[in-house]
Amino acid sequence: MPPVYDDPEFFEGYRRLARSQEGLAGAAEWPAMRALLSDLPGLRVVDLGCGYGWFCRWAREQGASGVLGIDVSEKMLAEARARTADTGIDYRREDLEHLELPEAAFDLAYSSLALHYVEDLAGVFRSVQGALAAGGRFVFSIEHPIYMAALHPEWVIGANGQRSWPVDGYLVEGPRTTNWLAPGVVKQHRTIGSTVELLLAAGFTLTHLVEWGPTDEQIVMRPGLAEDRERPMFLLVAARRI
Amino acid sequence: MPPVYDDPEFFEGYRRLARSQEGLAGAAEWPAMRALLSDLPGLRVVDLGCGYGWFCRWAREQGASGVLGIDVSEKMLAEARARTADTGIDYRREDLEHLELPEAAFDLAYSSLALHYVEDLAGVFRSVQGALAAGGRFVFSIEHPIYMAALHPEWVIGANGQRSWPVDGYLVEGPRTTNWLAPGVVKQHRTIGSTVELLLAAGFTLTHLVEWGPTDEQIVMRPGLAEDRERPMFLLVAARRI
Repeated sequence: MPPVYDDPEFFEGYRRLARSQEGLAGAAEWPAMRALLSDLPGLRVVDLGCGYGWFCRWAREQGASGVLGIDVSEKMLAEARARTADTGIDYRREDLEHLELPEAAFDLAYSSLALHYVEDLAGVFRSVQGALAAGGRFVFSIEHPIYMAALHPEWVIGANGQRSWPVDGYLVEGPRTTNWLAPGVVKQHRTIGSTVELLLAAGFTLTHLVEWGPTDEQIVMRPGLAEDRERPMFLLVAARRI
Repeated sequence: MPPVYDDPEFFEGYRRLARSQEGLAGAAEWPAMRALLSDLPGLRVVDLGCGYGWFCRWAREQGASGVLGIDVSEKMLAEARARTADTGIDYRREDLEHLELPEAAFDLAYSSLALHYVEDLAGVFRSVQGALAAGGRFVFSIEHPIYMAALHPEWVIGANGQRSWPVDGYLVEGPRTTNWLAPGVVKQHRTIGSTVELLLAAGFTLTHLVEWGPTDEQIVMRPGLAEDRERPMFLLVAARRI
């Protein structure tokens, strides 16, 4: 995973996002992610792609016994450390492509919108499986493959006047290069099927699969979210280590 | 589920399809479905939406101890009976919307491209769960929601010249009316997430989730299949009764 988050232009754009400024409350899909998380008191938690550490601090507030936040970006980790005054949270620089975690050391693994940058997703799933205690939970979100597949991921108007989201190359997995926040950001496109199959093969049971969309209330507050009903932007997954 | 298959125009169109004339070999996704099925010798099998009975007869050839084929269409069942000389296969008319199956009477439930006509999918899943012995398998295919979601499900050309499949209303579940084989055929659109959540809630463990695409060899034989790599047409699911 190239540390795109260390690219100055990308980092500056990221810094301005609602989810960076406001934390979890600034992420529209957070309430749905929250619903996938069990009670946290006493849990040992690892956050893969922790960014500014919003989730790490929230998990401790919820009673997690300890949290390890991992990110590949030194800038992100510096921000996270500057915002954290809690010895129960550790931050560590690590590349998700070569993740090394202690055995059976966690009860919950969490990752928000980071795993779609990873080429070796099977490797991450294996690492997380080994790092979780038996019965441990894994909850993550990625960009939805419908959102990511197309060569030109921008709304199109059909001959009939209907506005729709283009899907092409859906079953052609591999890198997708976009200009989100900075030019040339590379994401890894995978079908939902592939993500689920990799998860099952790594020794997980699937417990939830959510193609996220906004609630009516969210659309009233932020009308722009309505387009996330037309084509999903996020995929939320919950699994349990067998 | 309205017996659209009893509509004369639809039935005539269906009769001409390769999958009706040639059976399983005429269905491009069959090899992938086959791969999801365990060994059949000795299994008690039920086929939901059996059509002409191709799968029922194949299951018996593979050693299934008995097969029950269910369909809502009398025309389909008449065709199936006319083609079957095997007392190990029963055909029964039943509406999948109000499915009544004996308790724990089957080891494998199978369904090919029928469940996307069903309004009460949770009800079908509950019936199948009750009809399977513990550890029993459930393998089914449905039309892929990417294929089904849009108001006008036809290829579009974007301003950039790129041909793509339109997705809109993906998260708006419910009926979709199309003119496949006959005008006004109603299918039920559901996200992959909803299908999987209903399955898990009914007491199944997911074992495979396949967004089907053609192999290179299939595209050489039938070049038209290449477009199924651009946007998936079928979703294949395998589950185990807990």
